[in-house]
Amino acid sequence: MEKKLKQSLIYKGKLLSLEVIEVVMPSGFRTSREIVYHPGAVGILALNEEGHILMVRQYRTALQGYIWEIPAGKLEKGESPLKCAQRELLEETGYEAKNWQFLLAFYPSPGYSSEVIHLFLAKGLIEKQPKFEADEEITISFFSPQDLEKLLKSSQPLDGKTALALMFLRQQGVKQGNSNYP
Amino acid sequence: MEKKLKQSLIYKGKLLSLEVIEVVMPSGFRTSREIVYHPGAVGILALNEEGHILMVRQYRTALQGYIWEIPAGKLEKGESPLKCAQRELLEETGYEAKNWQFLLAFYPSPGYSSEVIHLFLAKGLIEKQPKFEADEEITISFFSPQDLEKLLKSSQPLDGKTALALMFLRQQGVKQGNSNYP
Repeated sequence: MEKKLKQSLIYKGKLLSLEVIEVVMPSGFRTSREIVYHPGAVGILALNEEGHILMVRQYRTALQGYIWEIPAGKLEKGESPLKCAQRELLEETGYEAKNWQFLLAFYPSPGYSSEVIHLFLAKGLIEKQPKFEADEEITISFFSPQDLEKLLKSSQPLDGKTALALMFLRQQGVKQGNSNYP
Repeated sequence: MEKKLKQSLIYKGKLLSLEVIEVVMPSGFRTSREIVYHPGAVGILALNEEGHILMVRQYRTALQGYIWEIPAGKLEKGESPLKCAQRELLEETGYEAKNWQFLLAFYPSPGYSSEVIHLFLAKGLIEKQPKFEADEEITISFFSPQDLEKLLKSSQPLDGKTALALMFLRQQGVKQGNSNYP
């Protein structure tokens, strides 16, 4: 296992912090790791009674463009993933959900980021008022599974949590023997 | 759409760079975005003749622990995703593959990172010599689909590319009508 020799904090911001860590490998080779610390996040696969998927579209500065994603957001200090998912779903889309099921947690980028994303399935949607944050500009829409498959095949990549949500949905379609499923 | 007011380069390293970008929202609200730039990466779902999955285990500084993942690596300047996948598979595992198929590309963390990961399926494996880089300490193993399902259900999360690869595998199992599939 590599050993830490020196740790330098490069940046501490409102969302991320960045450290450069000098390490020595078991072979004796010295190198450095650039590590981003992130508080963690949630993603929500929210389905209405028809089985359509609640999606949000927003501008992503990192991608220099708009992208459709499942609703998501980052964990606040001390917040449980489920509470975070419930809060973000309401804030971003104006929906509450009666039934929540944890699907999986995953590390989106273990090579440089500590982030973990917790994915939930939400059903039994109840329409309320969205509470957009001032730094968000969000459009919402329900996608049929076919719409989402088209999005997957378009030239614009999906994001990881949305791709995983789509995969879950495909399997659910298969499990339920839904012959209409693409 | 948000407009960029000011862009400050905080850090430029060997893998990542970090910018803080001041933006103004359509509402007039001003905020800042912390953005990580990454060259992009590949992941490889490599299957042997039995349908077992080639996995690599390594220490991930960002997670402060070891994790099993599908083979992966970052794009070099001007390198195509396929060339990168072929290079990384050989370097990390010592295998070449006769048949390559692109599966999908996805953004692991569009909220703050420009990274895109290109996922490939590799079959027809030929054993050669691995060429580990000096900063890598890698163990390789073939996992049965059942082993990988167990890993998914363990308390340690998978990483996103490995979870997506597992989902593809499940669907392939379903498509082929493989009744042994978990």
